[in-house]
Amino acid sequence: MEASAAITGQPEKPMPLLEALRALVGASHVLSEPEQIHPYLIEERGLYTGTALAVVQPGTTREVAAIVRLCAERSLPIVPQGGNTGVVGGGVPQEAVVISTRRLNRVRQTDPLNGTITVEAGCILADIQNAAEQAGKLFPLSLGSEGSCQIGGNISTNAGGNAVLRYGNMRELVMGLEVVLPDGEILNDLYGLRKNNTGYDLRDLFIGAEGTLGIVTAAVLKLFPMPVRRATTFMACANAHKALAFFKRLREAHGEQLSTFEFMEREPLQIVLDHAPGTMDPMERPYPAYSLIELTSSDPEADLETALENILAAAFEADEILDAVIPASMGQGRALHALREHVSDAQKQAGASIKHDVSVPVSRVADFIEAAKAACHAHMKPCRVVAFGHFGDGNIHFNLAQPKGMEREAFMAHYPAINRIVHDIVHAMSGSISAEHGIGHIKRHELARYKDPVALRLMHRIKSVIDPQNIMNPGKVLLPDTTG
Amino acid sequence: MEASAAITGQPEKPMPLLEALRALVGASHVLSEPEQIHPYLIEERGLYTGTALAVVQPGTTREVAAIVRLCAERSLPIVPQGGNTGVVGGGVPQEAVVISTRRLNRVRQTDPLNGTITVEAGCILADIQNAAEQAGKLFPLSLGSEGSCQIGGNISTNAGGNAVLRYGNMRELVMGLEVVLPDGEILNDLYGLRKNNTGYDLRDLFIGAEGTLGIVTAAVLKLFPMPVRRATTFMACANAHKALAFFKRLREAHGEQLSTFEFMEREPLQIVLDHAPGTMDPMERPYPAYSLIELTSSDPEADLETALENILAAAFEADEILDAVIPASMGQGRALHALREHVSDAQKQAGASIKHDVSVPVSRVADFIEAAKAACHAHMKPCRVVAFGHFGDGNIHFNLAQPKGMEREAFMAHYPAINRIVHDIVHAMSGSISAEHGIGHIKRHELARYKDPVALRLMHRIKSVIDPQNIMNPGKVLLPDTTG
Repeated sequence: MEASAAITGQPEKPMPLLEALRALVGASHVLSEPEQIHPYLIEERGLYTGTALAVVQPGTTREVAAIVRLCAERSLPIVPQGGNTGVVGGGVPQEAVVISTRRLNRVRQTDPLNGTITVEAGCILADIQNAAEQAGKLFPLSLGSEGSCQIGGNISTNAGGNAVLRYGNMRELVMGLEVVLPDGEILNDLYGLRKNNTGYDLRDLFIGAEGTLGIVTAAVLKLFPMPVRRATTFMACANAHKALAFFKRLREAHGEQLSTFEFMEREPLQIVLDHAPGTMDPMERPYPAYSLIELTSSDPEADLETALENILAAAFEADEILDAVIPASMGQGRALHALREHVSDAQKQAGASIKHDVSVPVSRVADFIEAAKAACHAHMKPCRVVAFGHFGDGNIHFNLAQPKGMEREAFMAHYPAINRIVHDIVHAMSGSISAEHGIGHIKRHELARYKDPVALRLMHRIKSVIDPQNIMNPGKVLLPDTTG
Repeated sequence: MEASAAITGQPEKPMPLLEALRALVGASHVLSEPEQIHPYLIEERGLYTGTALAVVQPGTTREVAAIVRLCAERSLPIVPQGGNTGVVGGGVPQEAVVISTRRLNRVRQTDPLNGTITVEAGCILADIQNAAEQAGKLFPLSLGSEGSCQIGGNISTNAGGNAVLRYGNMRELVMGLEVVLPDGEILNDLYGLRKNNTGYDLRDLFIGAEGTLGIVTAAVLKLFPMPVRRATTFMACANAHKALAFFKRLREAHGEQLSTFEFMEREPLQIVLDHAPGTMDPMERPYPAYSLIELTSSDPEADLETALENILAAAFEADEILDAVIPASMGQGRALHALREHVSDAQKQAGASIKHDVSVPVSRVADFIEAAKAACHAHMKPCRVVAFGHFGDGNIHFNLAQPKGMEREAFMAHYPAINRIVHDIVHAMSGSISAEHGIGHIKRHELARYKDPVALRLMHRIKSVIDPQNIMNPGKVLLPDTTG
């Protein structure tokens, strides 16, 4: 099309954007009508609505590259978008071209013996889990949104979830990447190698960069032996300190098999029991705190049930736990997992909430919960703390729920002060103000406040040299550069 | 001292370098006499001798920063150096200031419950292993040079070694870093968090950068439960394809416990038997190939011996293995490990060698050995291939030994051609020309030849924005930038 413009003798006047995009990917893959593009402008919690010049759905990496080159030539902002399930506004466009990865959804290769699968960015997480299972392998990343989130988004946000304790974050599950850079060049680092020391680690720069350095178009992911044995328990304890003592005991004896150690206080369990249909308290009386624990093994001979029973008995003796349930069937096991999985949804129904996704060293996780609860109660009365999360990773979703009898607006007016209280405690414990959700739009100012200034300056420098026009997901992660 | 220069009214004339360095760290920590600095100018294999303006031994991170600022002001090249055990010439200076990390050797903190240890760059690897053990934990990095290599060098080269199969490379063992940047600023990313999504992953940029982007001064490292059960075998098989079939069987059944799967053909074992005193063939007759295999567990109840015996029996049935030895004592176990550990040393005594440190997807490792052997034999007669290495990581040390009856010079004349043959095969199998040793000085041209040009250009850009004067270990990893 550029050539034809030259032939007509009018090279100065660029083709209108929508027309140029249609020429690259076909008219049916360029959306511009308000009702078509609306789903790409909103985010999970409905806090923002963005605006887009167009939503483009390329079908190949080359098409992604062509769109990026077009935008780079015109200095147009680009927002890469996967399943749009993020919770920090990282995918919301402002007068930008949205590049949706949904049509980049092929599994390019499965190599069970190498323990790898090569997938395109738009593959749905659950589809990758299924493809791995069909090859007799486990792809361990597991999230609440796995039925709709895309692996490109998981990579760009370094997703966490329920299997980090055993298998690591998304970062640990990626071996190689293909990335379209902000100038439209295609970086080929799509290797499935356990060892590769050939220069700077470019891969990890794009993982967790939230689409601000380039667009991940494909990845080589690690696969693991499929667990064939599994033992689960839901245990009750007096507080987070007791849970931590039991975690220590479990990890020392069964570090290789320990795949889940989730924690919740009574408040989040009560919210689930009140709002999630079909749930019931697995114990005869309420306790202050609980943990959902799972051991898994790929060894068919492993007797995990006996191991779990023995260690629960020892922990009971040592006064670390007060009660424990071991499910007698897979159905009962699923019901225990559901108690943890329903917390976020149930909390939505329980009124407004003030949320924090924080982490501290595992050794400080009980101290953190205790200190943050005390500080929130001192600040606001009444105060409903909903503390739960990936305890074994030091990652707590430390939320406040709207107290009964307090108006929504009066409650939400505390948002900034509560953020400051919780994040200051996290910072003092050498923790992180964003453990697994990322920075996106919502936490940019918090990042600028708490991040080491030398690290911030280095981030700005890297951004400036990879994306000198600042067209790749601008305004996300970093505030405008004032570091000089 | 700068102030006093100003007082004397001669600010134009900078203090002589040695004097300025002595003012920063004390006279006894600045070396300049030829016999003092000689050990810092040579490398492991004696292939090069460098030159240095001075060797400085700072005792704190602040002193490192002050030295770097001084060098930056004067545009002087800097070479960071740890134990100087690298094998690619990455630590050899050319008219540079060598900053030795040897006095930065404190363990700053041990947190067994968080599973972390915070150490300074100059800590000897073996000392860190011991400190972890005293805390009841395992620090798994394990190398031939562990008695003298320093952790800062291990980090800067993303060291591999003998425990990668189970615990990953150095990169997977680092949680946080402190780095002095080329402008003398101190980057504080010294966090011990399992989850931390606060902006770009700066840590991994410095890991494996071979000192070209900054000087690692401290790190938070991961600790693991101490293995208390261990089962070892040395097995014989017909070829690498059979070894790969057995590896597949083992990983599927015992993925969590499989910590060693080292491979060697008869030739490297024969070299060990010929040159390493006190070694003996553990089997009654020679076989074409062998693997050293170890299962470990932190669970005191785990019966690894029985598991190993059962799987060896099944592999024997399936014609995957020809013979196997299970040691009856710890002494016998050590003797089996020694057969693998002695290969490099024994090879030095067996004459000259042409070496390759390469990796391919694990699924291709047997194909690679077969193809590379055939190509080398076709090129050179007689030809002695010494193939061994970290089979389970896809990492083969594919070496050629000087054939009996061939002069050293005649043999070494084949070096470039053999490099090209082996690296072309690796490249065609989507492998790496440097699996664990890095690029340093020796492999710069090979990197420029085989690396994706977009990746190379990005590396140059990152180097230029972090080290615009090109003073940090110049001439290593990257050739002068001609990518524009």
